[in-house]
Amino acid sequence: MANSAWSDRVLQLLRRMNNFHLPGSCRASCCRFEVNGAQVGWIPPHVASLLTRYPEVFSPPRDGAVSLCHSLDSYGRRSEAVDAVLQTLRREDSLSCLKGWRDEKYSVMPKFSDPPLMWMERAATSLFGVKRYGVHINGYIVSDSGEVSMWLARRSPTKQTYPGLLDNLAAGGLAAGVGVKQTLVKECQEEACIPAAIAEKAHPVSTVSYTYEEEDGVFAEGQFVFDLELPLDFKPRIGDGEVQDFYLLPIDKVKELLATDDFKPNCAMVVLDFLIRHSFIDPDTEPCYQEFVAGLHQTLE
Amino acid sequence: MANSAWSDRVLQLLRRMNNFHLPGSCRASCCRFEVNGAQVGWIPPHVASLLTRYPEVFSPPRDGAVSLCHSLDSYGRRSEAVDAVLQTLRREDSLSCLKGWRDEKYSVMPKFSDPPLMWMERAATSLFGVKRYGVHINGYIVSDSGEVSMWLARRSPTKQTYPGLLDNLAAGGLAAGVGVKQTLVKECQEEACIPAAIAEKAHPVSTVSYTYEEEDGVFAEGQFVFDLELPLDFKPRIGDGEVQDFYLLPIDKVKELLATDDFKPNCAMVVLDFLIRHSFIDPDTEPCYQEFVAGLHQTLE
Repeated sequence: MANSAWSDRVLQLLRRMNNFHLPGSCRASCCRFEVNGAQVGWIPPHVASLLTRYPEVFSPPRDGAVSLCHSLDSYGRRSEAVDAVLQTLRREDSLSCLKGWRDEKYSVMPKFSDPPLMWMERAATSLFGVKRYGVHINGYIVSDSGEVSMWLARRSPTKQTYPGLLDNLAAGGLAAGVGVKQTLVKECQEEACIPAAIAEKAHPVSTVSYTYEEEDGVFAEGQFVFDLELPLDFKPRIGDGEVQDFYLLPIDKVKELLATDDFKPNCAMVVLDFLIRHSFIDPDTEPCYQEFVAGLHQTLE
Repeated sequence: MANSAWSDRVLQLLRRMNNFHLPGSCRASCCRFEVNGAQVGWIPPHVASLLTRYPEVFSPPRDGAVSLCHSLDSYGRRSEAVDAVLQTLRREDSLSCLKGWRDEKYSVMPKFSDPPLMWMERAATSLFGVKRYGVHINGYIVSDSGEVSMWLARRSPTKQTYPGLLDNLAAGGLAAGVGVKQTLVKECQEEACIPAAIAEKAHPVSTVSYTYEEEDGVFAEGQFVFDLELPLDFKPRIGDGEVQDFYLLPIDKVKELLATDDFKPNCAMVVLDFLIRHSFIDPDTEPCYQEFVAGLHQTLE
């Protein structure tokens, strides 16, 4: 039988990572963020009121929406006008998330399949509830007797976000104009010293999507998930200093850990998706099987 | 590059199978169906008005909900009282879906992990938008050179629903009190003459969830998905007459077919999930990758 304390903790994780969908979230008080007539995000009230100071960039809230001014009629004009506002707000130091400014440009569009309408600094996306995309890699080995073990990273204690927590073998956000596989190969190289010849063998298997609110704003994310079966004798090594250590753990241990606070929450979701796809969770003994899968794929209409 | 006509047809399929979630669906005019204070479905207006004739079983609509009378305070009492109403409606011949009466009892509960509150005849579940669960099996082979081919069934021309359309190797609904694997083994045996020793090797990999409305009512379904790699020399055979033929097709052909009207729609979704998990769809060339995965996992709060 499944362990119901474990199942409860996993459900709690999924609920927390989807709390923007729950009754009582700030969703009802958020404004839709619209560019060129299409919704690309959600703006929390404290951000919407700040933006009224910049009427040449953001139209005042109307019918529950804040729009970029229509005079900003190209990808470049929109991106630069918003960036100038964000740079000002950053200097004012009033929005804590902007302290994590990264100089990474993320694409802004209604759906992943739509052409980008503008770019936005990564650290600012949560102020606008703009959906961000990334790639996460499950690195694992299969022993000669068929036992599966997974490589996990422990994040550096100096990382800006989630310091010291367990992470997937490698992961990274999709910057504007950079491909999914390209990002994967780059992150594998930088974070875990995995040569491109090995990283290229990762194969796409899934996505994991969620939207949560925190003090800083609304985090809507969609992760492309890849599986990478590694050679038995391969060992990842610390690369750019984002990771302090790598562990190779039996899958039962990984399963136990994913329901603890030791795991970066979205990475725990990626591992849960792995456990389901690789049949480490059985629908006849895990009553929450349907809820687990649903919780990994929550999207906003 | 991905074929955008194919992608569009797949998106249309996913939209149709989730049309209850779309603006303009009957959702806004449906009543919640509540048992013991918990929502277990959605009742369309034409059904809600019929049910007012049975005030000893269904409380009149109030605050957007139709409830089972509280005097029906056990699994058995609820099930029998509702069944008696349904038998009456069936004799009156006014609800076309009851012509498909099957004498199959389905469990009714808020979530799959909750204890069932009652059972209900399978053919009636769409009148109450009660979520139904089932199991679908992707049967496939991998040639010595690594080429994947999939076994598909063609439904009998005399099937009550979706006659003559393509289907997964085997599939079936979960009757009250019957396990997921148990249902799988039974359906494999009955529909495709797959011996239990082979069917048992199927492994759980995913779920596919969707809610659509048709004239008959609201179809909320969650399918447990299993993969079954078959021996190269194994051939399924027609069993109980629900299938007219089996085909072994190269995966590219299956991919092409799933976007046509020749496929039973929920089976096409199960195949799409297979194509994603087995990396036959590439996120760098299929712009709708994120939408595809999201469309396979739509659930109602």
